[in-house]
Amino acid sequence: MLDYRAPRDDIAFILQHHIGAEALATVDACAALDTDLMSAIVDEAGRFAEQVLAPLNPVGDQQGCQWQDGTVRTPNGWPAAYDQFRSAGWTGLCLPEALGGQALPKVLAMPVAECWQSANLAFSMIQPLTEGAVEALLASGEQTLIDRYGPLLVSGEWTATMALTEPAAGSDLGLLTTRAIPDADGGYRLTGNKLYITFGQHDMTERTLHLVLARLPDAPAGSQGISLFAVPNIRPGDGIDQPNGVTCTGIEHKMGLHGSPTCTLQFDQAWGELVGPANKGLSIMFVMMNEARLSVGLQGTAIAERAYQAALGWANERRQGKHPRTGESPTALIEHPDIRRLLLRMRSQILASRLLGYYLGFRVDQARQVEHPAQQEARAELELLTPVFKAWSTEYANRLTGDAIQIFGGMGFIEETGVAQFYRDLKISTIYEGTTGIQAQDLLFRKIRKDNGATFHHWLDRVAEQSSLAPYVQALRDTSGRLLDHQALTYLHAAAVPLLEATGILAGAWQLCQAADKAQAASVDAGYRQNVTALRDFYHAHWLPELHLHLARIQQADVGLVDYDFQQ
Amino acid sequence: MLDYRAPRDDIAFILQHHIGAEALATVDACAALDTDLMSAIVDEAGRFAEQVLAPLNPVGDQQGCQWQDGTVRTPNGWPAAYDQFRSAGWTGLCLPEALGGQALPKVLAMPVAECWQSANLAFSMIQPLTEGAVEALLASGEQTLIDRYGPLLVSGEWTATMALTEPAAGSDLGLLTTRAIPDADGGYRLTGNKLYITFGQHDMTERTLHLVLARLPDAPAGSQGISLFAVPNIRPGDGIDQPNGVTCTGIEHKMGLHGSPTCTLQFDQAWGELVGPANKGLSIMFVMMNEARLSVGLQGTAIAERAYQAALGWANERRQGKHPRTGESPTALIEHPDIRRLLLRMRSQILASRLLGYYLGFRVDQARQVEHPAQQEARAELELLTPVFKAWSTEYANRLTGDAIQIFGGMGFIEETGVAQFYRDLKISTIYEGTTGIQAQDLLFRKIRKDNGATFHHWLDRVAEQSSLAPYVQALRDTSGRLLDHQALTYLHAAAVPLLEATGILAGAWQLCQAADKAQAASVDAGYRQNVTALRDFYHAHWLPELHLHLARIQQADVGLVDYDFQQ
Repeated sequence: MLDYRAPRDDIAFILQHHIGAEALATVDACAALDTDLMSAIVDEAGRFAEQVLAPLNPVGDQQGCQWQDGTVRTPNGWPAAYDQFRSAGWTGLCLPEALGGQALPKVLAMPVAECWQSANLAFSMIQPLTEGAVEALLASGEQTLIDRYGPLLVSGEWTATMALTEPAAGSDLGLLTTRAIPDADGGYRLTGNKLYITFGQHDMTERTLHLVLARLPDAPAGSQGISLFAVPNIRPGDGIDQPNGVTCTGIEHKMGLHGSPTCTLQFDQAWGELVGPANKGLSIMFVMMNEARLSVGLQGTAIAERAYQAALGWANERRQGKHPRTGESPTALIEHPDIRRLLLRMRSQILASRLLGYYLGFRVDQARQVEHPAQQEARAELELLTPVFKAWSTEYANRLTGDAIQIFGGMGFIEETGVAQFYRDLKISTIYEGTTGIQAQDLLFRKIRKDNGATFHHWLDRVAEQSSLAPYVQALRDTSGRLLDHQALTYLHAAAVPLLEATGILAGAWQLCQAADKAQAASVDAGYRQNVTALRDFYHAHWLPELHLHLARIQQADVGLVDYDFQQ
Repeated sequence: MLDYRAPRDDIAFILQHHIGAEALATVDACAALDTDLMSAIVDEAGRFAEQVLAPLNPVGDQQGCQWQDGTVRTPNGWPAAYDQFRSAGWTGLCLPEALGGQALPKVLAMPVAECWQSANLAFSMIQPLTEGAVEALLASGEQTLIDRYGPLLVSGEWTATMALTEPAAGSDLGLLTTRAIPDADGGYRLTGNKLYITFGQHDMTERTLHLVLARLPDAPAGSQGISLFAVPNIRPGDGIDQPNGVTCTGIEHKMGLHGSPTCTLQFDQAWGELVGPANKGLSIMFVMMNEARLSVGLQGTAIAERAYQAALGWANERRQGKHPRTGESPTALIEHPDIRRLLLRMRSQILASRLLGYYLGFRVDQARQVEHPAQQEARAELELLTPVFKAWSTEYANRLTGDAIQIFGGMGFIEETGVAQFYRDLKISTIYEGTTGIQAQDLLFRKIRKDNGATFHHWLDRVAEQSSLAPYVQALRDTSGRLLDHQALTYLHAAAVPLLEATGILAGAWQLCQAADKAQAASVDAGYRQNVTALRDFYHAHWLPELHLHLARIQQADVGLVDYDFQQ
């Protein structure tokens, strides 16, 4: 079993120096927290991740979940761990105090969530669903629903699902067919089949609130005719609660995330209530999805970190071959420059994505605070960079978990080593909450082209303040300028992913450059400072040149795409 | 279950046009084969792959192998399929006629092997072991051993293993400790533990010949003291055959290739005979390993092809989203430019690696023929490009099987779809038969620097005959020139993998440019011609720019490598 150690040094540095106490103090949600309290919370979360969640991770992978007659049994020890999790108050960490939560800032929730994801990704997935459901109820403004379900979700007594996907409606939710028919009492009866519902049925709590997308009888076709409904798995009745026509008809047999049940749900005249206005379900769901994208982006950071820790441990322990300078044989793997190269690929990208992820968490805090001077800028930047962070962080993390296996050599292919699980678990991260292709279209069409590049170019101006990045900024600015003028849709669609990848690399470099600057502060440990500087330099030498690769691909994005006949 | 279709069009084009009938005719092994006979053989192999091996592939993945009390049961149907395989004569396809084989040329063996690998990679792994063992016996010149074991291996009555790795000796075979003590009758008694022995024990044949690396009592330390031994699993006796002290103590639980048993073998006073001169075991084993590297490189082609076929089928069938030009909704995935981009990433790289793989197979035929005018050049080029093909083809194929999952979306993460198996199975391909790092060191130190770049630069001259590649050749030539002068070992070791990757990309482009030229022949189907041209153009636009990325990385290969303190 592989140990996990929370990255306390990075977390402390990012909060205290990279974002910095001064900036944090401008946000109300942080104001009540001094540095000591913040690190106490992170410390406690790290310990819970290390001691409770991490040991259950291989158990989850090996046992998986068991479905029988509509009920799902999670792996041994998981329900007990969830009890501990919720009694410690983690379920309400950043949810409103009025509902029983602790209302902690997002900038603190990000490192906490990263620790849980690193330790046990499958287990960790239950929590963003709860948070997202509460956010959606709050966003809809339905006070009855907030009052009824809010405290139960915040306390972790109930869990929640996002029931979106159907067999014929995946990336394209406009195709969904689940129907909601009004009943005589102001409620609705939902009928339809949902697919890929994470924790759709489980034994960690008795109650689950399904947030379900469905169509009203008179709804327009496509994505303009989708409404959101709150459907409890058990209907509260007068005295006796009753099953509510929601059946789990099976769970998926997946390549990874075995501990997280992925359910097919059948809704058969299930009673529910409308959340928010009719036909506006997708826009409320997008509130949830934007934060869910941050959370999935962070999964990239978290699992790459876990794989890195494992690979570093092995590289220190395993002795093979001759030391390239001293000739000592056998020498530890870590003495081989090619192994160091692989480890630094991992470490530099992990730090870059951690910096960006936590920074975006801080932007969430700014964007939420009405009178904050940076609110507008924060909101615009969040909308711009959320799809970038989600796709870039996870795409890279998939490569890095592969690098970790490479460092293990043949041992990495053996399941007992544990590193293969990270590779398998993470593969879905570039797909769920919107594939990389979907994120890239969001970036190019809904973020960059919609305001004619204004937000994007404003962000590029900020990046260019790092003088070493100025030439890269200029290259990306030139390319994106051409994409603004371009009208051929085939070309634009084919250019979207390379544009996102280039933007992600630049965002990572930007964060690392800032971090290296901030690490010059006298109070930063000298060894840590030297390492951050080395990581920035490595990133410049190794990762940043990929920006030019992606720009070259954009130049000729449609070459061959139309000429090739796939049906030949 | 996913169907498999042998890529007959590509195979026919490569044999008849890309390599070409005229060139084939210069090789004795091909002279007896006209075009019709060649395509009949490929056709038959394709059918066997499609109808017998492919249906057993998911069975192998789901059931895996079962170990009990020293014996291994392969998946249902596998022993029967092996009986069919050997009665059809495939085991001796390219082995000498004197031993009962068919002595077909390697250029024909490559497409045949690709079909088997595509259809069922785990099953296909038994065959190169048999071929390698016969080659090793022939290379050693031990006539008694050739006479005794050769015909049994060629007929497939026996299978063979390469018993190299030990718990402490993986990439560094010099560390192995298995001992061979001479007995009174001119034989040896071997004692030690071997790890990761493919098909080390199984129920597809009763007899197995282990080719084992071990140390004689007076052997020098390190890789200069390793000898090769032939150790049958059952010792032929006077009348009664007896077990020979070789015990399978377990099989590995792997991320992929579940149908291929990966055994731990315990040798306890096992009787064996020396193969070739004492202490020269590694050099004989390298004869096997060079061809094994070609075979593993081809696994990249084969599994990427299989994943491509699956992804293409899904992209044609699945309907999501709006057609970017006509607005039709839902439209087939394949109408989305970003999906076409992913499919062409796959298809262009697969064709490039198939072209290079078969071409290197043809180079093997030339190199084997003593009086062939191209023999010397072929041998030198083979030595240069074998590590490149092995590492480049498999590294890319791993990315491409990931792309295939991406095209499937959420469905790709579900095991029943079948595409996840390709992703899992292939992960070991960049590790076994020498990791990518090992191949890169071989390329830089033993191939390029050893003759001061002569072979490499001669090859670059040939590539530069394609005028569109001349600037890329020049850039790579400049960089490799600097690597010849450089002396700092840390820098050189860190530059090796990027150098190999740049060389691989250029080799792929070279092959595709030649193929597009050859496709201009009047007898090539017009649709096929247009597609090869589109693939060349796409490769130029999409993949070739990676060459500059790798050269940029080489420039600064050691940045951060020494400064970063991993123990911080």
